[in-house]
Amino acid sequence: MPEVITAVEAADIRFPTSRELDGSDAMNPEPDYSAAYVTLRTSEGGEGHGLAFTIGRGNEVEVAAIEALASLVVGLDVEELLSDLGAFSRRLTGDSQLRWLGPAKGAIHMAAAAIVNAAWDLYGRREEKPVWRLLSEMTPEQLVALVDFRYLRDALTPAEALEILRAAEPGRAERTRLLLERGYPAYTTTPGWLGYTDDKLVRLSKEAVAEGFTQIKLKVGADPAADERRLRLAREAVGPGTRIAVDANQAWGVQEAVERMAALAAHDPYWIEEPTSPDDILGHAAIRRGIAPVKVATGEHCHNQVMFKQLLQAGAIDILQLDASRVAGVTENVAILLLAAKFGVPVCPHAGGVGLCEMVQHLSMFDYVAVSATTENRVIEYVDHLHEHFTDPVRLRDGRYLAPTAPGIGARLHARSAADHTYPDGPVWATELQESAQ
Amino acid sequence: MPEVITAVEAADIRFPTSRELDGSDAMNPEPDYSAAYVTLRTSEGGEGHGLAFTIGRGNEVEVAAIEALASLVVGLDVEELLSDLGAFSRRLTGDSQLRWLGPAKGAIHMAAAAIVNAAWDLYGRREEKPVWRLLSEMTPEQLVALVDFRYLRDALTPAEALEILRAAEPGRAERTRLLLERGYPAYTTTPGWLGYTDDKLVRLSKEAVAEGFTQIKLKVGADPAADERRLRLAREAVGPGTRIAVDANQAWGVQEAVERMAALAAHDPYWIEEPTSPDDILGHAAIRRGIAPVKVATGEHCHNQVMFKQLLQAGAIDILQLDASRVAGVTENVAILLLAAKFGVPVCPHAGGVGLCEMVQHLSMFDYVAVSATTENRVIEYVDHLHEHFTDPVRLRDGRYLAPTAPGIGARLHARSAADHTYPDGPVWATELQESAQ
Repeated sequence: MPEVITAVEAADIRFPTSRELDGSDAMNPEPDYSAAYVTLRTSEGGEGHGLAFTIGRGNEVEVAAIEALASLVVGLDVEELLSDLGAFSRRLTGDSQLRWLGPAKGAIHMAAAAIVNAAWDLYGRREEKPVWRLLSEMTPEQLVALVDFRYLRDALTPAEALEILRAAEPGRAERTRLLLERGYPAYTTTPGWLGYTDDKLVRLSKEAVAEGFTQIKLKVGADPAADERRLRLAREAVGPGTRIAVDANQAWGVQEAVERMAALAAHDPYWIEEPTSPDDILGHAAIRRGIAPVKVATGEHCHNQVMFKQLLQAGAIDILQLDASRVAGVTENVAILLLAAKFGVPVCPHAGGVGLCEMVQHLSMFDYVAVSATTENRVIEYVDHLHEHFTDPVRLRDGRYLAPTAPGIGARLHARSAADHTYPDGPVWATELQESAQ
Repeated sequence: MPEVITAVEAADIRFPTSRELDGSDAMNPEPDYSAAYVTLRTSEGGEGHGLAFTIGRGNEVEVAAIEALASLVVGLDVEELLSDLGAFSRRLTGDSQLRWLGPAKGAIHMAAAAIVNAAWDLYGRREEKPVWRLLSEMTPEQLVALVDFRYLRDALTPAEALEILRAAEPGRAERTRLLLERGYPAYTTTPGWLGYTDDKLVRLSKEAVAEGFTQIKLKVGADPAADERRLRLAREAVGPGTRIAVDANQAWGVQEAVERMAALAAHDPYWIEEPTSPDDILGHAAIRRGIAPVKVATGEHCHNQVMFKQLLQAGAIDILQLDASRVAGVTENVAILLLAAKFGVPVCPHAGGVGLCEMVQHLSMFDYVAVSATTENRVIEYVDHLHEHFTDPVRLRDGRYLAPTAPGIGARLHARSAADHTYPDGPVWATELQESAQ
């Protein structure tokens, strides 16, 4: 009997982060960081875990979307599935009826991400390797076979992708060694949430520098005077040598973004992240022209590889911020890393949320070993929330992510954490909802 | 006691259209046309109906998304809601937690569309007017107040929108009269589904001309030789004077689209619809440059006004095909009509599906009366499926939509049709599923 997938379980897991205003920004004042949490099970007792990150209400819609995709997965031969993860991804994103809900965007695409990443996790567990290592040991041909080139060829051909990967092949072993020794550079968003007081901002900014971070990030996009004051305070706290990125979380229009950034320029912001609608490719290009040399970064809400392709073609971004679970998981992110390498744009992934740090580090590390072959001007976002709920939490030292050694992609929750935070019936929410009803 | 919204009901309604290959195209071989069907109820017994159109599997995800939005609607004061439908739309699309599932795209945005259109339907029923008329009688200032300009100002300012509407104001009464007398031009997609035989294609093409249509549409994007043969047969059937649009339903890459259209050019196709990914603004622009004078049309999967803004800014389209329930309903479509008018691009709405003809005619008729003030090169798609299930079906005469006179937006299903086609427990599906299980 061949091993088959026997179940795709989806759980609604939510953390009541809005209590502390952790994660508060210009567009998301009170998020409850949540995960539509997937467990793949096989007939031989194998498991794989992935998740779609949301910020509270609507997490149940993600669960429904995962359940809608499940029928495409249950019963599949595991060996076959893992031997062609490109085909598996296309199976999930290409179902003719379900793709109508996107196509390749929104709830149904994030659901595909959760399942695709769970499949990569299962693969890693079977091979007893972290996913970054699994990817880094694939041949250029195997990696190119993961990519769906249908809409990419005008920017990146299979031959070009192969060339990029082959050029990086000779140094793979040495870079793997360096990565295991030194880790990968990080920056921290912990100091800069919009809901924090000035005192907390200053204290956390200083702590970040002391911990070895060379870049921090501040949320902006609310009151202009407050933006200026907070950036000034942070600049005074960290000194001129530490990069400070700012993040407007889509709050502005195009011209408004240019004007608002002009008002902050004196304090030397490094990049402006999500200055406007994540869909506005031409708008980002106009903003970039208007605020240089300050850099433009976006990507956490960029919904698929076709959008990233255009951001690159239009010269709209200096920094590409892919997300582990917004596009369709590891497989689509391999395509996005190749696009970024083709256009010479550094990738600085979005992280934070629930498990995003744990998952996305694998992509940056693979990029370093086998794609761009550099960490220059590349940093992975770090936020110090909720890691304790994962069985293989990220490990940081001196402002760098240490390369994970545990098998899989890092998205597995402690069973107790999952049970406690199940919505609405887990004990944390039963209490929370009871209190708010009083 | 003020009148309030007491319920937002969402029903999963599906029609087993895959039996007959009605609606079959290059990307959607076996659709079961479906609706996540919304009923708004008020404390005074008022009702409003809207729907999100899907093609089968995943309709339950739309239902979940509508239910997620319902808590933002139940309890609202009806007078207040209807007096500021712009604010109501922003309430649905701007909820900080739920917008994470988009933002402004995919399942959650289509759910907003269904509810927004139901609110416009409720408004029309209260005023005893069809929605096109309701819109056409609003002042330019009231119409501009519907628009969310946050991300639009670089292409369209409130002052420019006002100018467009004021310029069209003097002729409103005369155009209303003409519309009631003559209706609005239509084209038909009925002959050209990919699953139809050549004989059926030829017969239906001839019938379309006999019925007064001056434009038909064919699905392409499968086998190149079949595309060429079918277009040739259709051209022979209708003669040189009838426009034939072709529709690839996203099947091609950018260069591929240019090549495939070159192979069809001898048969004088009028426009190519959805030649590639609906997200590929720059790709559509490149295709347009590559195939002129054949026109490029897209929009049925264009997920929001920011994408339409860029399609126009980039000179990517000759024809803008808005959809009644892909963007957030009437309110966002008012913005899209204004953008199209600003850029001088004709709007030829997507229709067909379930109830799309019924709803979208209101937008084109409003456009004619109060925005673009012309029907030149403008046609509404027509497909002759499933109208019998609606209480106020579209009426066509001589290839033209007659202006609806019934109050509301036209999305109300017969109670019996809804009950029969409820998935999975309605009698039609109970039988269907029982048969397929045997």
